[in-house]
Amino acid sequence: MRELTVDLGDRSYPIYIGEGLLHRAAELFAKHGVSLKSPLMIVSDANVADTYLGPLEEQLRSAGYLTVSITVPSGESSKSLSVFESVITKALEAGLDRHSTIVALGGGVVGDLAGYAAAAYMRGIRFIQIPTTILAHDSSVGGKVAVNHPLAKNIIGAFHQPEIVLYDLQTLQTLPGREVRSGLAEVIKHGLIWDAGFVSWIEENMAKLLSLDPESLGYALYKGCSVKAEVVSKDEREQDLRAILNLGHTIGHALEAVAGYGELTHGEAIAIGMVGSARIGVELGAPEEVYEVTRRLFISCGLPVGIPAHYDTDAIMSAMMRDKKFKEGRMVFVVPTAIGRVEIDKNMSADLVRRTVEQLKGETGQA
Amino acid sequence: MRELTVDLGDRSYPIYIGEGLLHRAAELFAKHGVSLKSPLMIVSDANVADTYLGPLEEQLRSAGYLTVSITVPSGESSKSLSVFESVITKALEAGLDRHSTIVALGGGVVGDLAGYAAAAYMRGIRFIQIPTTILAHDSSVGGKVAVNHPLAKNIIGAFHQPEIVLYDLQTLQTLPGREVRSGLAEVIKHGLIWDAGFVSWIEENMAKLLSLDPESLGYALYKGCSVKAEVVSKDEREQDLRAILNLGHTIGHALEAVAGYGELTHGEAIAIGMVGSARIGVELGAPEEVYEVTRRLFISCGLPVGIPAHYDTDAIMSAMMRDKKFKEGRMVFVVPTAIGRVEIDKNMSADLVRRTVEQLKGETGQA
Repeated sequence: MRELTVDLGDRSYPIYIGEGLLHRAAELFAKHGVSLKSPLMIVSDANVADTYLGPLEEQLRSAGYLTVSITVPSGESSKSLSVFESVITKALEAGLDRHSTIVALGGGVVGDLAGYAAAAYMRGIRFIQIPTTILAHDSSVGGKVAVNHPLAKNIIGAFHQPEIVLYDLQTLQTLPGREVRSGLAEVIKHGLIWDAGFVSWIEENMAKLLSLDPESLGYALYKGCSVKAEVVSKDEREQDLRAILNLGHTIGHALEAVAGYGELTHGEAIAIGMVGSARIGVELGAPEEVYEVTRRLFISCGLPVGIPAHYDTDAIMSAMMRDKKFKEGRMVFVVPTAIGRVEIDKNMSADLVRRTVEQLKGETGQA
Repeated sequence: MRELTVDLGDRSYPIYIGEGLLHRAAELFAKHGVSLKSPLMIVSDANVADTYLGPLEEQLRSAGYLTVSITVPSGESSKSLSVFESVITKALEAGLDRHSTIVALGGGVVGDLAGYAAAAYMRGIRFIQIPTTILAHDSSVGGKVAVNHPLAKNIIGAFHQPEIVLYDLQTLQTLPGREVRSGLAEVIKHGLIWDAGFVSWIEENMAKLLSLDPESLGYALYKGCSVKAEVVSKDEREQDLRAILNLGHTIGHALEAVAGYGELTHGEAIAIGMVGSARIGVELGAPEEVYEVTRRLFISCGLPVGIPAHYDTDAIMSAMMRDKKFKEGRMVFVVPTAIGRVEIDKNMSADLVRRTVEQLKGETGQA
């Protein structure tokens, strides 16, 4: 078992990563002071609940916990105010009190939804994350929780840190290939913004990662979480540094906004966005290899590096203008300056971004 | 103009109290760094908007602010998730960004609603309170913001401190008498929990307060806000001390929950609750005068001191059991021990509370 701490003063918390950790949930909950007297609510989605919810509830009940659970539909549509309301309703009906804990058992959607419910319920109760996807290694660190509004993603939310994060590598073994690749996009991002050595390690171990080799996967998640934890502990509320975590996300979110349902995963969208950002970086003076390595990494991971030709550039640009990463009219953009290093450009030219979007539409993804 | 500071470290903020302060809004906004570049949104209700919204927007626009506004229906029904969503929608449509400010122009409902929108929008933007009722002196200090759920009041919320509070005494001159009395109930509460001298001052100046004499009202609001500010700065997140602010609220909230629409104002409900709490205090050993003074104060203020006979005791008690001030099954109750002093009893007997509720149903309010 690997363990690391997200260092946030009195809101610090540990992340446990290892095989079979789900079987130790009751033990770890007790270690971290989860109340046996107040009801505990597990939020999961239909996919995850089928396999993991029953055994987890049984384990917790045997240990004396009062558990209730709510299962929401799988997919991004559950990150809505109406599903949020149904989670709150369930919490009220089950009598959750100020000492209760909400547990997120699932991927990023469940984590964001359950986390926001925990942030809002009685103005904030305890929260535990049990991520079951690779992608969720990203959202489970840092305390950003939110639901979507029809006009914008993640616009209704809070900063609410979990008590603990339990990462059981066994739950990742059943992930579909597309979700594995999508999750690895955020792992790669953590290398690209912070750690050139980790980027090299990823290149060398990509095959193992794609085959879900537990040792490699454990290390990659540990490193990815570590980078994020380091950034977040320096800037919990995204005053400045934390914005580097948005590498690839300005273009990526716009692509997700204009994509049809299921056309692009989050990881696919930000992979394309990171390739675009690397292109912009090189245009602004970064070494050519920044673009080459970035593109090669995503291709070897089986992720797209170009925008499907039928996407409308105007629609992408106007989705970007609605994105919250704009300050007072200027465009904020995370730009790579070297492998493992980025900077935040607060005066990015929208024209240059538009030109890059156009160029990405010509990319085919052939190495 | 009186000024006091709510001392919360880097979340500290000033409260300005005075006549005609609304005319100085643009100046005070500028002094406190409200952005001219990012849109600013004013939330008000139908009653308040009629009189104050137009002039405020005009003043802010003349000073170069980009203002938009949303007017919600008057009354508690606006503290709902659906009205909250409409406020968020308006903010998105108006392009509010991370540097924007949401201004609450109105009473407690508007403050709680707008404050929660500011807490949630982009995970938290700036917030300014311009309370226009006496009651709102209470909710404008301390950063508790929330909306209601059909099953429980204030259950979906956050702690989100304003940047400034502007209290213009002139806006209070048009308050209906019943709202004046209701607001004074919270002022009296602040005396009863903290400051026997202030309680005496209130008794002596009740007539002036009821006639809205600006000097007396300004002092009473200053004192009421000061008590709350002191309590809140010692316990921002209601770990312990802050719970004393709930004096009268356990019974009061239950009465509001079972009352028909418009039957009881918040101030009326907690006045009855405080009389009940004083009765319990005396029963547990406090001097008899605690009950006598409390009752006399509310009678002289024209507030009810008994529960209308047609209220069902079982319904009141079960509303109380759903209230969030219960911890792990035991009943938490704020009990007066002297005038100006209370303690938090974490093991209050539900039987004693029930008996007190029964007794309150016999009270007629005759001095």
